[in-house]
Amino acid sequence: MSRSRLTPEREAELFEAVLELLREVGYDSLTMDAVAARTRSSKATLYRQWHSKPELVATALQYDGVPGADAIDTGSLRGDFHGMLSQTDECQMEKDSALLRSLVHAVHTNPDLYDALRTKVIAPEEAALRTVIDRAVERGEISVDNPAREFVPHMLFGVFFAVQMIEDRVPTMDFMKRYVDAVVLPALEAR
Amino acid sequence: MSRSRLTPEREAELFEAVLELLREVGYDSLTMDAVAARTRSSKATLYRQWHSKPELVATALQYDGVPGADAIDTGSLRGDFHGMLSQTDECQMEKDSALLRSLVHAVHTNPDLYDALRTKVIAPEEAALRTVIDRAVERGEISVDNPAREFVPHMLFGVFFAVQMIEDRVPTMDFMKRYVDAVVLPALEAR
Repeated sequence: MSRSRLTPEREAELFEAVLELLREVGYDSLTMDAVAARTRSSKATLYRQWHSKPELVATALQYDGVPGADAIDTGSLRGDFHGMLSQTDECQMEKDSALLRSLVHAVHTNPDLYDALRTKVIAPEEAALRTVIDRAVERGEISVDNPAREFVPHMLFGVFFAVQMIEDRVPTMDFMKRYVDAVVLPALEAR
Repeated sequence: MSRSRLTPEREAELFEAVLELLREVGYDSLTMDAVAARTRSSKATLYRQWHSKPELVATALQYDGVPGADAIDTGSLRGDFHGMLSQTDECQMEKDSALLRSLVHAVHTNPDLYDALRTKVIAPEEAALRTVIDRAVERGEISVDNPAREFVPHMLFGVFFAVQMIEDRVPTMDFMKRYVDAVVLPALEAR
């Protein structure tokens, strides 16, 4: 008999619990015991499926992610960026910000967490953004040697933290769209 | 007899100790007892001079800051931005990043800390950047109605977090200068 597998519904329930705990207590205080207790599962099950806490957390974050940026193909770079933003509602942005705040310190102090996140979340997201940018280059919207291309992930990602530190609030959808129009597209000299 | 005041040297020593503790244990775990112990002072002295932990931390961060961005006036916006960056060496950038990581969660959960930081660090820094931008507008380098103007603090600040989350390293001076040239100046359409 093959090893038992969790149903997709059960997996989703587990990932939701991990994300909830992450927002509540942060990465360092999150324990496999707490995940097991909240989901009425055994630690043995958790370790069998995900091997380690960094793996479980990275997989939960991967599950939480919106579909890759490259899934949107509107025919213009501005349309693609605005489309990406529109996939996320403001309640989700609030939740994502809480997750990011809980991770910024943890990533620096837990190399295993960084490695798991890079594999499961960061690298796929970078690749998806590259696809979006490459399509804009092919359409002639941006120049192939535009030096801002390498900074697209930084531009889109950094502003989340900046708004929180500078203004003590989570960016709204409207703010993000104005930022894309005022900063990201002009830096790429999108035409 | 007037109330005793600390010498500037003694103040500097206290602020350094606060910043050290902040990097080591983070804001939430930093206690006035620990500051008193490390600096061989009394808690009474600390409270008499700075009233509260958020005030003391914000004042230490203000002390730590490089001179306001507006102190540099090279005659071009690019020169001013590069000059600002050159004020900070890479060891200082490493230290500043550790401070920011320790603050990103704390600022969100401690409104008193945010208020003290806004008054002593964030608002003065925003004003200094506005002065730099206003001078560029007067010189005709950027248009008065350029929509990227409101995002200058976000562009300069957010990239610090983005590099750490995406690449798990502190930005180098060279990286920051390339980012200014590839993103910040083109977004402002500086000419």
